[in-house]
Amino acid sequence: MKTDGGSDAAKRRAGERAAEEIENGFVVGLGTGSTTAHAIRAIGRAIDDGLDIRGIPTSFQARQLALAVGIPLTSLDTVDGIDLAIDGADRVVDAPDATAHGALIKGGGAAHAREKLVDTAADRFVVVADPSKLTDRLERSVPVEVLPDAHTVVADRLAELGGEATLRAAEQKDGPVVTDNGNLVLDCEFGPIDDPDGLATRLSGLPGVVEHGLFVGVADATYVGTDDGVDVRRY
Amino acid sequence: MKTDGGSDAAKRRAGERAAEEIENGFVVGLGTGSTTAHAIRAIGRAIDDGLDIRGIPTSFQARQLALAVGIPLTSLDTVDGIDLAIDGADRVVDAPDATAHGALIKGGGAAHAREKLVDTAADRFVVVADPSKLTDRLERSVPVEVLPDAHTVVADRLAELGGEATLRAAEQKDGPVVTDNGNLVLDCEFGPIDDPDGLATRLSGLPGVVEHGLFVGVADATYVGTDDGVDVRRY
Amino acid sequence: MKTDGGSDAAKRRAGERAAEEIENGFVVGLGTGSTTAHAIRAIGRAIDDGLDIRGIPTSFQARQLALAVGIPLTSLDTVDGIDLAIDGADRVVDAPDATAHGALIKGGGAAHAREKLVDTAADRFVVVADPSKLTDRLERSVPVEVLPDAHTVVADRLAELGGEATLRAAEQKDGPVVTDNGNLVLDCEFGPIDDPDGLATRLSGLPGVVEHGLFVGVADATYVGTDDGVDVRRY
Amino acid sequence: MKTDGGSDAAKRRAGERAAEEIENGFVVGLGTGSTTAHAIRAIGRAIDDGLDIRGIPTSFQARQLALAVGIPLTSLDTVDGIDLAIDGADRVVDAPDATAHGALIKGGGAAHAREKLVDTAADRFVVVADPSKLTDRLERSVPVEVLPDAHTVVADRLAELGGEATLRAAEQKDGPVVTDNGNLVLDCEFGPIDDPDGLATRLSGLPGVVEHGLFVGVADATYVGTDDGVDVRRY
Repeated sequence: MKTDGGSDAAKRRAGERAAEEIENGFVVGLGTGSTTAHAIRAIGRAIDDGLDIRGIPTSFQARQLALAVGIPLTSLDTVDGIDLAIDGADRVVDAPDATAHGALIKGGGAAHAREKLVDTAADRFVVVADPSKLTDRLERSVPVEVLPDAHTVVADRLAELGGEATLRAAEQKDGPVVTDNGNLVLDCEFGPIDDPDGLATRLSGLPGVVEHGLFVGVADATYVGTDDGVDVRRY
Repeated sequence: MKTDGGSDAAKRRAGERAAEEIENGFVVGLGTGSTTAHAIRAIGRAIDDGLDIRGIPTSFQARQLALAVGIPLTSLDTVDGIDLAIDGADRVVDAPDATAHGALIKGGGAAHAREKLVDTAADRFVVVADPSKLTDRLERSVPVEVLPDAHTVVADRLAELGGEATLRAAEQKDGPVVTDNGNLVLDCEFGPIDDPDGLATRLSGLPGVVEHGLFVGVADATYVGTDDGVDVRRY
Repeated sequence: MKTDGGSDAAKRRAGERAAEEIENGFVVGLGTGSTTAHAIRAIGRAIDDGLDIRGIPTSFQARQLALAVGIPLTSLDTVDGIDLAIDGADRVVDAPDATAHGALIKGGGAAHAREKLVDTAADRFVVVADPSKLTDRLERSVPVEVLPDAHTVVADRLAELGGEATLRAAEQKDGPVVTDNGNLVLDCEFGPIDDPDGLATRLSGLPGVVEHGLFVGVADATYVGTDDGVDVRRY
Repeated sequence: MKTDGGSDAAKRRAGERAAEEIENGFVVGLGTGSTTAHAIRAIGRAIDDGLDIRGIPTSFQARQLALAVGIPLTSLDTVDGIDLAIDGADRVVDAPDATAHGALIKGGGAAHAREKLVDTAADRFVVVADPSKLTDRLERSVPVEVLPDAHTVVADRLAELGGEATLRAAEQKDGPVVTDNGNLVLDCEFGPIDDPDGLATRLSGLPGVVEHGLFVGVADATYVGTDDGVDVRRY
């Protein structure tokens, strides 16, 4: 369920542009995935040039990359707030006239619980993406992190909401993917999602659900890397 | 945050009465706490007398007691459904004219995530309680299970909702209580809770929250053990 | 680090032969992996034909397969013992004159902590394998499950023991593989392992290590599926 | 199983004396418990006076106290090493002629897995204690952290080693104590432990055991707070 596609050059442009937003003294939420990785590497270079910031990773992957490029890390229980979060997305609603403009689907990397925690805690949350992630209507499966014992019950509840859930299988271990929180992931196909906000509320209310991948009203902007620049959407 | 009070005789009456509802062939959700324990022991005696049921525990504690009294256990991923769940509560709204009649606060035993999963999955959910748990208005602190890294961020969000959150401290280990799911518990004082349903929706939507202790519209009945019998509330 | 190779027909012969060892009333440990899966399916067919046993899965994967083929499951805290465990291996020392004859490397599927728990608790542990798993000397990397915070410290300790450790990366999530227990896996190359028993003791003693994939003196027999039959090694 | 006893003044003397060992630039392992808490508070005051160090907590409790007193924190995956660890103990063998001189029992606070990881990773590990912790022979129960599914099997293995294991019950939640790692604790009575090193090796080798509370050959010194000073044992 990890998204591929999108040229690396476009991803890099988006990531590097977002990194330019960081100011001295910032606490920065560091997202997960290949586009955000470009932002993290750019931040590392800026730190080499004297930028003084602290990062809060959204995942084990982001943590390791941040350490590798020399970003000083801190943690949610240590800071008063997060100035800026930079994170990727699997889908971004790009339909200015739609109420869901700027809504996201995340969770292809199974890190969406901590991503949502960090991204919503930030004063400003910038999505970085390439054009392959833009859509005028959400149709992609929604990752839903569930308590291990809950996966069958939640799958039944998702079916009642019109979704078809599949337990995400791992490749480098036997059995299912286990998240950094020790939970499982149901990838749920709803077909076209016309009311992401309503669906998000219903998913959050399901017992056994730890977090779902619908991010509605969370992003402040999306930076879309293109062949020759960066298009900016502000919400 | 575990509730005491309530005579053991009253708890026993409620628990044993609920156990009488169980029919041959049932799959039964087995709740947590001292009142439900009376139901579990009564089920064990009925099994000795030939009752054929299978139990699904809501917690490690319930599991151990069920094994001790000889209840055959099964699991959520094995059964098609749960016929009846019997569980306790820390508070039960007992105000027939209120919209929140039958709403519960649970989580004093930190097992409310799995309790809500099992209790809502049951065709019928019977609460067992003694009169000390009844209230015409919810004023007790609400237990909120949170991902370990999230406790400070969630506490900030709870403050925005008018709540004062305290990380529950353990006594038999250093540091906080850790739940059976490996998470932490914030006990959150909201003062009188006039709209439990609305608060429940807002709590469920907070990133980092795994489950909260408000059970609104979940119970089908409450069996209240008294000095000389059992009063039944049906919702 | 999951092992491939070995014909499916050979794996099937080994798995089905092991399943024939099961007697009515047995509690059976159900291993993880593709060869053991043949045993589990054979057990499911025998149950359809009237065999009365209960299974204890060694992993989430084994649990799901066992449920799919109709094996009644129980759990370690419910039974007095395990009569027989059937499990696969990534490598089996097949050198009758060596002290390590019958030693195994397991953990390619990251389930070795629970596998070792179940396999050692069994009265009899039968390994099922195809010839590609046999070796006269252990040279394969050893999976080491570690507490998440411990991975760098344990990697340093492994280096002192002559091993080169790599944190196992996931494919269907970002970042590392997380085990069913919520931990991480270091795959550690030691070169040829001349003293598996001594290495096993040293690995077990390392703080932060939950379990390693060396199984020395645990197997009672290995059933090796071949092109036209099953070779049995007894230890 | 948490140890009480020992005057607070004696504990304070030991903790503060250990804190004096810290030099500018140190990475310091911060232990768990009431005696170490005095060291952590002393370090906080020294930081107010200009000391420049970073701490690595051994538990959630140590982390929270360190944050409260203003100690900058780092993590095991960020540093190259730990210069000094300061930690408490439930028992310290104080018998200069015994081979086990300086052996410890830890784990009363259920934090011993991470404590052992940090304490053994340190260049120097100083135990802080009051005289009530000293003993010429280890007789106290040994805390053993186990994977949740393993507790009955491990208890059986411990019985074979001559120990009587009890699953540690919680007070502020229903059911057992759950550790910061999400596991359970067996407190195991062995009677007098004549060969702590041998027992430690056997406990480490038991499948399902995450970590035990015997620390043999780990401590470099014990600072014993007395009525009027600090006695130092060096090993």
